[in-house]
Amino acid sequence: MEREELFRKISIGNDKKMVLLVLDGLGGLPRDGRTELESARTPNLDLLAAESELGLSHPIAPGVTPGSGPAHLSLFGYDPLKYEIGRGILEALGVGIDVNARSVAVRGNFATLENGLISDRRAGRIPTEKNRELVAFLGKRIRKIEDVEIRLYSGEEHRFVLVMTGDDLDDRLSDADPEATGLPLKYAEARDEAAARTARIVNLFIERLGVELAGQHPANTCLLRGFAKYPAIPSMGDLFKLKAAAIAVYPMYKGLAQLVGMDVLATGRSIRDQVATLKQHYADYDFFFLHVKKTDSWGEDGDFARKVEVIEEFDHWLPEILELTPDVLAVTGDHSTPALMKGHSWHPNPVLLKSPFLRRMPADARMVDAFACGKPDGTDGQSCGKVSVSAPAAKFCETACARGVLGHIHAMDVLPLMMANALKFKKFGA
Amino acid sequence: MEREELFRKISIGNDKKMVLLVLDGLGGLPRDGRTELESARTPNLDLLAAESELGLSHPIAPGVTPGSGPAHLSLFGYDPLKYEIGRGILEALGVGIDVNARSVAVRGNFATLENGLISDRRAGRIPTEKNRELVAFLGKRIRKIEDVEIRLYSGEEHRFVLVMTGDDLDDRLSDADPEATGLPLKYAEARDEAAARTARIVNLFIERLGVELAGQHPANTCLLRGFAKYPAIPSMGDLFKLKAAAIAVYPMYKGLAQLVGMDVLATGRSIRDQVATLKQHYADYDFFFLHVKKTDSWGEDGDFARKVEVIEEFDHWLPEILELTPDVLAVTGDHSTPALMKGHSWHPNPVLLKSPFLRRMPADARMVDAFACGKPDGTDGQSCGKVSVSAPAAKFCETACARGVLGHIHAMDVLPLMMANALKFKKFGA
Repeated sequence: MEREELFRKISIGNDKKMVLLVLDGLGGLPRDGRTELESARTPNLDLLAAESELGLSHPIAPGVTPGSGPAHLSLFGYDPLKYEIGRGILEALGVGIDVNARSVAVRGNFATLENGLISDRRAGRIPTEKNRELVAFLGKRIRKIEDVEIRLYSGEEHRFVLVMTGDDLDDRLSDADPEATGLPLKYAEARDEAAARTARIVNLFIERLGVELAGQHPANTCLLRGFAKYPAIPSMGDLFKLKAAAIAVYPMYKGLAQLVGMDVLATGRSIRDQVATLKQHYADYDFFFLHVKKTDSWGEDGDFARKVEVIEEFDHWLPEILELTPDVLAVTGDHSTPALMKGHSWHPNPVLLKSPFLRRMPADARMVDAFACGKPDGTDGQSCGKVSVSAPAAKFCETACARGVLGHIHAMDVLPLMMANALKFKKFGA
Repeated sequence: MEREELFRKISIGNDKKMVLLVLDGLGGLPRDGRTELESARTPNLDLLAAESELGLSHPIAPGVTPGSGPAHLSLFGYDPLKYEIGRGILEALGVGIDVNARSVAVRGNFATLENGLISDRRAGRIPTEKNRELVAFLGKRIRKIEDVEIRLYSGEEHRFVLVMTGDDLDDRLSDADPEATGLPLKYAEARDEAAARTARIVNLFIERLGVELAGQHPANTCLLRGFAKYPAIPSMGDLFKLKAAAIAVYPMYKGLAQLVGMDVLATGRSIRDQVATLKQHYADYDFFFLHVKKTDSWGEDGDFARKVEVIEEFDHWLPEILELTPDVLAVTGDHSTPALMKGHSWHPNPVLLKSPFLRRMPADARMVDAFACGKPDGTDGQSCGKVSVSAPAAKFCETACARGVLGHIHAMDVLPLMMANALKFKKFGA
């Protein structure tokens, strides 16, 4: 039996509430002996850790650094090696374009054609303003090719995204890009017979665009790269019988959530706003994905201190989420973004799982881990005042998670563990 | 996407150096409370452990005791259940026979045929000397059958290995062995149409051998078991873009390394010689596999003390390897060979991983583990003098590894983790 077949079989709906809190790029590497999470003062996370199961999770496989797409699919319970999200679709999701299962998306460049040869693959990096103007113009002139709907979206400078929506479109096409200057236009070729019609549409589009932009030198033609179909992923409703909602600020994460059938809730940009949105819609769904972006952004920038600050800001708002008393709560990252590496990394993510059905680490063992990560505990002068002297010295940090009762798991097991703890999985087999 | 497809996609070449140090059969079981590794005085390994990630690795799956073939494939990053190395090929590799992708190897017995029936399946266990004589004789008489090259290699007593090399040979053959006395000769049968020609060659060989040995009673015929083709394994160059070299003394390990495309470097027999070979060729490769055999040999003999001595000898030479400052270093075993069990076992192997991108276990946590495994640390009277009193009390031992930040992993994840730490993997997905 396939993993998904199993989940479909054992998932049952009930009214328990699950909240998945994702701090993007949460995991880190130590500077002066402490990671970002270990450096942050997180009295609320630490209190929560004392009554939670801790562990580490690999997004894809040990050693493999994920992009945001596969890392999130994994957290949503999907095998990230089973569903590949093509570049064009991610790009479209990333700028908030409406794509669906009938869409093929592709990244485009405006380019310059002179005497039948490509002389500039970026049309002299035309200003973004000019790009918008051209896209608006083309939007009026090219609405359909045969029965396929054509939409264009401006990116920065010479970049745009083309979305084709229609029946039986196929993304098995070679790039329509000669990949060098001094060569003639290159048309898309079908790499599978089923893609022949899509190739024809694409090439008709390229010709139409050339006609429309004939007087617009240097932006008088286009190159198209990375054709991608909207992947056919079963929804979380289908797989897990969940009514799921996403509270995310950045388009790519909203898009990824939409991809697996979540409702994307309108929200403000701050963590405070996102928590308010969670409260407001708390009655309407049984699964919430709340995505905090800035931990990753500062990690990517190599700004250790500001990544620490975002973790502390998140910790500040955590009690408001806890007041909702979700039946199951998980706090984790999608991947690590150590400030010291200025980018995503392969290091497994801290995971915290809270429910009424836990094997908790006894205080003595946690005490050891508290010493281990060197994180200030609630019993010292740095206490936030909420932590009583007798509180177990638990810490939410990589070191404690490396030794937590949850062990080292695959990120795609986080959601099934949440399901189990929400009693949303029935017994498998008799 | 398959695991190998993933690796092929994300592997990138760079000039970082990786060294994999394999102490064969390293893992052990405690005698008087300490395993072989815990009993050994290993000041250099322990110092290294203080700045490394520790963990345990399963060669095949929990509970499964591996032979050397699958255990090494796993360490080289291959799924040991995907590639089975047939007995005949392992036997050939084990005695240092040159086999390649066009070869089929099979184990043979000299046997006795009387009145058309097999009367002794081992030809009265003829002396090895006699075996060599027969093989030399046959070597001159049977060099080719059709266009297939025939080579015979003596084993002990009645045993030999037959290697056939030619185009389109196939190992899907039934054994040419009646498996009991009192039965007539049994010829090989093709279990797939594609193997029909190979079956014919094999059976012609059996007939020719019978003719040539007509006067050599009791060794006047042969039985053949375990036809095996040289497995089609992608090379480490193909899969991981590595230029890889092996420094091993025993033929089987050289053969296994060759199987995955490593260059096998000529080396002396001692650990000292092997380290000298590593130094000599250090500029020429970006991955080195250095194999220490004797830990396993003494484990197999049940000689706890001598296994301890080999570990200590290795520890003595370790600093010379560290002076090369490889970007990524791993120390592990291929499987456990507890002296108390006098054989391979299923117990997971200690793994130590050193690179610049580690989550290290802070000293206090290691101290706990040092107490836990009871290994003498650098601060007590048993110190070698190199370890200062202030050194973190880290230990490279099964107990510390069981709680290490690396967790419990599969042995086939060791190489991907080394690749990640050498920045030889790019991000998967956007």
